[in-house]
Amino acid sequence: MNQAQTLKGFRDFLPRQMAIRNRVISTLKRVFESYGFVELATPTLEYGEILLGKYGEEAEKLMYLFKDQGNRQVGLKYDLTVPLARVMAQYPNLTKPFKRYQIQPVFRAENTQKGRYRELYQCDIDTVGTASLSADAETLAVISDSLLALGFTDFTIRVNSRKILATITDSAAVLQSLDKLDKKSVEEVKQELTTKGVSEKQITDIFAKLESAIPDADLQKVIDLAQDMGVTYIKFDPTLVRGLDYYTGTIFETVVTEPKIGSITGGGRYDNLIRSLDGPDLPAVGTSFGLDRLCDVIEELNLWPDISPTSSQVLVTVFSAELATNSIRLGKELRQRGINCEVYLDPEAKLDKQLKFASEKGIPYVVIIGPEEASRNVFRLKNMQTGDQEQLVLEELVSKIR
Amino acid sequence: MNQAQTLKGFRDFLPRQMAIRNRVISTLKRVFESYGFVELATPTLEYGEILLGKYGEEAEKLMYLFKDQGNRQVGLKYDLTVPLARVMAQYPNLTKPFKRYQIQPVFRAENTQKGRYRELYQCDIDTVGTASLSADAETLAVISDSLLALGFTDFTIRVNSRKILATITDSAAVLQSLDKLDKKSVEEVKQELTTKGVSEKQITDIFAKLESAIPDADLQKVIDLAQDMGVTYIKFDPTLVRGLDYYTGTIFETVVTEPKIGSITGGGRYDNLIRSLDGPDLPAVGTSFGLDRLCDVIEELNLWPDISPTSSQVLVTVFSAELATNSIRLGKELRQRGINCEVYLDPEAKLDKQLKFASEKGIPYVVIIGPEEASRNVFRLKNMQTGDQEQLVLEELVSKIR
Repeated sequence: MNQAQTLKGFRDFLPRQMAIRNRVISTLKRVFESYGFVELATPTLEYGEILLGKYGEEAEKLMYLFKDQGNRQVGLKYDLTVPLARVMAQYPNLTKPFKRYQIQPVFRAENTQKGRYRELYQCDIDTVGTASLSADAETLAVISDSLLALGFTDFTIRVNSRKILATITDSAAVLQSLDKLDKKSVEEVKQELTTKGVSEKQITDIFAKLESAIPDADLQKVIDLAQDMGVTYIKFDPTLVRGLDYYTGTIFETVVTEPKIGSITGGGRYDNLIRSLDGPDLPAVGTSFGLDRLCDVIEELNLWPDISPTSSQVLVTVFSAELATNSIRLGKELRQRGINCEVYLDPEAKLDKQLKFASEKGIPYVVIIGPEEASRNVFRLKNMQTGDQEQLVLEELVSKIR
Repeated sequence: MNQAQTLKGFRDFLPRQMAIRNRVISTLKRVFESYGFVELATPTLEYGEILLGKYGEEAEKLMYLFKDQGNRQVGLKYDLTVPLARVMAQYPNLTKPFKRYQIQPVFRAENTQKGRYRELYQCDIDTVGTASLSADAETLAVISDSLLALGFTDFTIRVNSRKILATITDSAAVLQSLDKLDKKSVEEVKQELTTKGVSEKQITDIFAKLESAIPDADLQKVIDLAQDMGVTYIKFDPTLVRGLDYYTGTIFETVVTEPKIGSITGGGRYDNLIRSLDGPDLPAVGTSFGLDRLCDVIEELNLWPDISPTSSQVLVTVFSAELATNSIRLGKELRQRGINCEVYLDPEAKLDKQLKFASEKGIPYVVIIGPEEASRNVFRLKNMQTGDQEQLVLEELVSKIR
């Protein structure tokens, strides 16, 4: 082969994509930290034994496992929850509740035809070591603040509780069908239940219970607390199931309705999971953000038209080899004043080529220092959008670019 | 096994370590971006064929290679340069010069007894597609600005050129010995050369040339340009060799003298490397920052005593279940004013326990809202360092915490 290509299901992030990812990540981090969540990072590789027997057979087929040079069985991270359980066991002195966020790639040899990535970035927040419903509510508040900070205003946080679902049915097969109510019609789901051998009477009974379901005391408390925290986009939805069977209490999922990008967070309370993953016996609640999806959607729908692959605010061109020093010194002055500034590197290049460079990179301003400007100690500033040019002294230049 | 432990040579980064790493990385990024460098990220895994035949046999022994589910030979990134060469080949339309930075983990199955990590974070900046000496100088300026921004004031950027070394000797064995002059005495190195069969006369000749060596025209130009860019810590050092044999021109290395932490950047011009790595024929110059070393040293020497594992500025305690809502609402108010604020999650916890939580996490302020404060609509602020307490109205509280 020896062709320059990325591995199937893996991606490069070029500067424009990185600019979007960085803005999404720094926005999320700012919100997480405003609630006291702290960052954790765990290794890319773990002992195979840490990973195996935790996710079920189907997942293990997708796991990147191999023998290392020391003949140890090792594996690439499959998610961020098993490493969290290991961390909680390995560092028992961590102050609890331990509120951590973690943004790292995980690896799954998924069928790429489904448009899935094999290296995907997960973004999780979890509160470990408290059964307090305030933690559930706070998770909802973090979700709400995060989406608002990202610029989404039209979204709904659907909430439900596993305990409420348990009063409606104890059949996993029925739950699996109910989980499809956000995509299929009531008739279709009823049909599916019939196929599964659920009687007409039972189906009627289930839907009657769904219709009359109301939040139980715990869920109502979570909703009230979240409202006190400023969350306004909450909706109780008794048909919300969430696939993962380890949830024990509150469950939630966020759907962004405009732009129509679907579900971008999911989570809930899981009081037994960390113990079952060989961690200590600690109750926990948390959520995942669909980071790759968020970034892809922002890119595809061009939701952030102002994003630029460069953070350079100005290109200082080089008029001639003799005047190169003037340009270099201006670059230094601008940087010292906090302005991101490129100085064109090749002093032999024609001005046209330099302007094309600025335009290709999306740099909004260009400075030209020709012999006239140099002798009068001024700078010609060109606005690349409008084409307007003006001669300015340093301080005028700085405030214009800012 | 099934014990909670990280794989040999791999590390967790707990919140305090992450706080240091995040500050180092954001400081470096800010400087890189102030010069117009843009971020690139490449996958953790690459096709084996992309990685093999590039680094030499010794390196390949340290490489994590395995067969994936599709029976492809794949490998974990070994450095950031081969992926850069692939990117330059895969996306020929990238605007040149392409100035990119990249901060990602790479993987090497090193002997961990040497205190080496098997997952290490590299931090590289490279300017690809120009032979202009301004790019060499700019790399030095980025190094200088980065170290100053990190708080180091006592460092030296040693510079030399492969072309100058070529006038002193064409023997790789001799260069290998000269490279040790920063650690060994002149006598020891002369002794080593004798052992290698270099004659007394040749040794005298080599050291005479070293003594009288001066920068050639190109290197002088790089030094002059760097000085125009504001770099003051440059020193020409004809004994600087740099191990890697792919450098073609300027070479440089930075030594921090106080605190005595040794060499933390290394790089140079490599005009043939990208082509030799199956990339296009593009000249390039760049440097690596020893990110793990920088972070370890800052942690071990406690160089940033103000760093905290949490970014919470204040803990709002919960006096009682009845008054929990007051605390929750204050939390919201503070966050809306840009203050990172935790509200204690368990409304049943004793105040002592809540204060202990703040103290363990290093949160500098605590707010208490008891019945008296609630009725008068004021807040009791406790400075955790001094123990001082005062009653304040909201706006006073905000400006005090800020």
